[in-house]
Amino acid sequence: MKIIKNQKSKKIIALLTDFGNKDGFVGSLKAVILSINPNIEIVDISHEVESFSILEASIILNATYKYFPKGTIFLSVVDPGVGTEREAIIVKTENYIFVSPNNGILTLPLKNEKIKEIVKIENKKYMLKSDTNTFHGRDIFAPVSAYISRGVALKNFGKKLKKDNLVIMKDIYPEEKEDRIIGKVIKFDKFGNAITNIDKIPENSKILFRDYQLKICNNFQEGDKYIPSLIKGSFGFYEIFLKENSAKDILNINLFEEVIILK
Amino acid sequence: MKIIKNQKSKKIIALLTDFGNKDGFVGSLKAVILSINPNIEIVDISHEVESFSILEASIILNATYKYFPKGTIFLSVVDPGVGTEREAIIVKTENYIFVSPNNGILTLPLKNEKIKEIVKIENKKYMLKSDTNTFHGRDIFAPVSAYISRGVALKNFGKKLKKDNLVIMKDIYPEEKEDRIIGKVIKFDKFGNAITNIDKIPENSKILFRDYQLKICNNFQEGDKYIPSLIKGSFGFYEIFLKENSAKDILNINLFEEVIILK
Amino acid sequence: MKIIKNQKSKKIIALLTDFGNKDGFVGSLKAVILSINPNIEIVDISHEVESFSILEASIILNATYKYFPKGTIFLSVVDPGVGTEREAIIVKTENYIFVSPNNGILTLPLKNEKIKEIVKIENKKYMLKSDTNTFHGRDIFAPVSAYISRGVALKNFGKKLKKDNLVIMKDIYPEEKEDRIIGKVIKFDKFGNAITNIDKIPENSKILFRDYQLKICNNFQEGDKYIPSLIKGSFGFYEIFLKENSAKDILNINLFEEVIILK
Repeated sequence: MKIIKNQKSKKIIALLTDFGNKDGFVGSLKAVILSINPNIEIVDISHEVESFSILEASIILNATYKYFPKGTIFLSVVDPGVGTEREAIIVKTENYIFVSPNNGILTLPLKNEKIKEIVKIENKKYMLKSDTNTFHGRDIFAPVSAYISRGVALKNFGKKLKKDNLVIMKDIYPEEKEDRIIGKVIKFDKFGNAITNIDKIPENSKILFRDYQLKICNNFQEGDKYIPSLIKGSFGFYEIFLKENSAKDILNINLFEEVIILK
Repeated sequence: MKIIKNQKSKKIIALLTDFGNKDGFVGSLKAVILSINPNIEIVDISHEVESFSILEASIILNATYKYFPKGTIFLSVVDPGVGTEREAIIVKTENYIFVSPNNGILTLPLKNEKIKEIVKIENKKYMLKSDTNTFHGRDIFAPVSAYISRGVALKNFGKKLKKDNLVIMKDIYPEEKEDRIIGKVIKFDKFGNAITNIDKIPENSKILFRDYQLKICNNFQEGDKYIPSLIKGSFGFYEIFLKENSAKDILNINLFEEVIILK
Repeated sequence: MKIIKNQKSKKIIALLTDFGNKDGFVGSLKAVILSINPNIEIVDISHEVESFSILEASIILNATYKYFPKGTIFLSVVDPGVGTEREAIIVKTENYIFVSPNNGILTLPLKNEKIKEIVKIENKKYMLKSDTNTFHGRDIFAPVSAYISRGVALKNFGKKLKKDNLVIMKDIYPEEKEDRIIGKVIKFDKFGNAITNIDKIPENSKILFRDYQLKICNNFQEGDKYIPSLIKGSFGFYEIFLKENSAKDILNINLFEEVIILK
């Protein structure tokens, strides 16, 4: 399919946070954004990221961002260090703009994106004044994203950073050994599928999870209701699943459990 | 009330899925739709349908679709058979367009709608290319809905189907016997109300649930905090409820528990 | 930061309910609103307010409304009395318009807003006709909000009320004694922080929660993973928190537990 883009796009700000949908935090973000730029399309990616899980946010952002129109601004906030000296950054790539704390949340998407510019957010002119120090999503990331969407040049927000300044998550990729690859479960989805960090499996290898040897399926119906199988899934990684059942609940899978590929 | 529609409507795509609000799946749908048609209004009906529950999806769709403006496109995906040979369809009725797997999800809304055209989705030109087979919401249903919203004629998506080809859920209506009607609980709502499949009750009948004889109330305040009552509710069915309490939790009601109407 | 508003705003209707995101109730609200006014921006504040908790709704509304552009219409429905004689009202303040049941939900925001006009919603012309009495969000509050957004003057909806007619929650503020202030926990947020009703703490006072003496922190990282601290948070109140942990879960905090400030 060629995506036809012959209609003028509204600028999009896409939101990804661990703020939850209950407390009104996201409503505040949107209120701030719409106060600054009423002509914006706001799209929620997720606000139910596990609290403080930079890893899960990075996985979700990586699985979704590339489906958005070019020029989309991604406001991604999972921010255990809010209010401390951790940096707030803007990363412009060939196709998109990412606004987030500099804490590793951009690790996975930036692997595939060509970085053009990185800026540290410093200029208080583009921040909300606040007497609390607990909600930079509302007070810093939202207004900065909105001003970017209005065309404010990135250099106005603060000084340039280098690629070396980017905080990157390590230890999230499978461990390559001579005879095996050691992967792990890095996320569960709503259906109880256990997403691993494995995105490639050499032909004719044996895949082991606990005492199971996992068969690779082409669709979920090829699986079994109680014996786990493997499938290449929507996050771009292989997933352990049960057919119409929650693998997580029925097999009591733990986050970071190992999956072994014998080459 | 007459709904006054003297303002030009944006086309609406309404979304109903079991994808959850946590994993970013819905963000991907919206990204694909907005890439194809930026001038669209996207409205979420629900993404928290019980995983794989075609019945719950049908109940929710049935309770909401008729409030949308004419011409709304409903993208409804609860799809245990994703990636198999189950069909993907477009159903055009006098008022609306429904896009979904052909698995029974449209059973309840189509009872009241006059069907004009049914098309099987086959044309790969309107699908996203993907190396996985697990996310037809993103790769098929979203782009097809977006192209429909842009005015692509239905015949372009694939061959015509007949009404007989529609998969319809059976056994979801109450059982009519000579002296009684046997209904059942088919859904719980957020307040713990137990929605039954009963939409009509003959006058002067006795309504039994377990050892309780249910009184029909006109509003929730007429009920009791611990003794269940019945009310005609927002889904168009009678609901078992407790006043300001969760009937589901306090009475431990099970899905498909029986409610008996003695005529 | 000065918020620059040199672009024409679409009217905004912001939604706050306890309807949940699962059952499609919110989809119905939006469908009704868009049928009446297609040129409206709808923003969700929250639909996951605890069922029937007027207090939580008031706290969330109070923490968010002031970030919205002037003229925003707030449709707030937590409505245990739906279908009874409790009033439905419109309150116009200097900056905003609030539409809700007259049950105390507006208590906190109206403390800071200058009230200009209060109207009882009576005119059936602006309501949806319905054969049930359980969903005034859809049948009354949504259409009324949409007609307000289209410019219908408030006097058309019903008779004027006086400020004395407003139902206001009492007992939600801390108790001031000679030597101490007795506050309480009034809400938990998604991170497990325990929001208190205390918004001011005299200098050099001792703050007691159970056997802990709480230290006031400037950011969450200054706290401890297991010993509770206090911080001025996003709701405008002091919050009991653990660093990157859920205070609610780890300390088993109960709603309405006391926090004592010794002056």
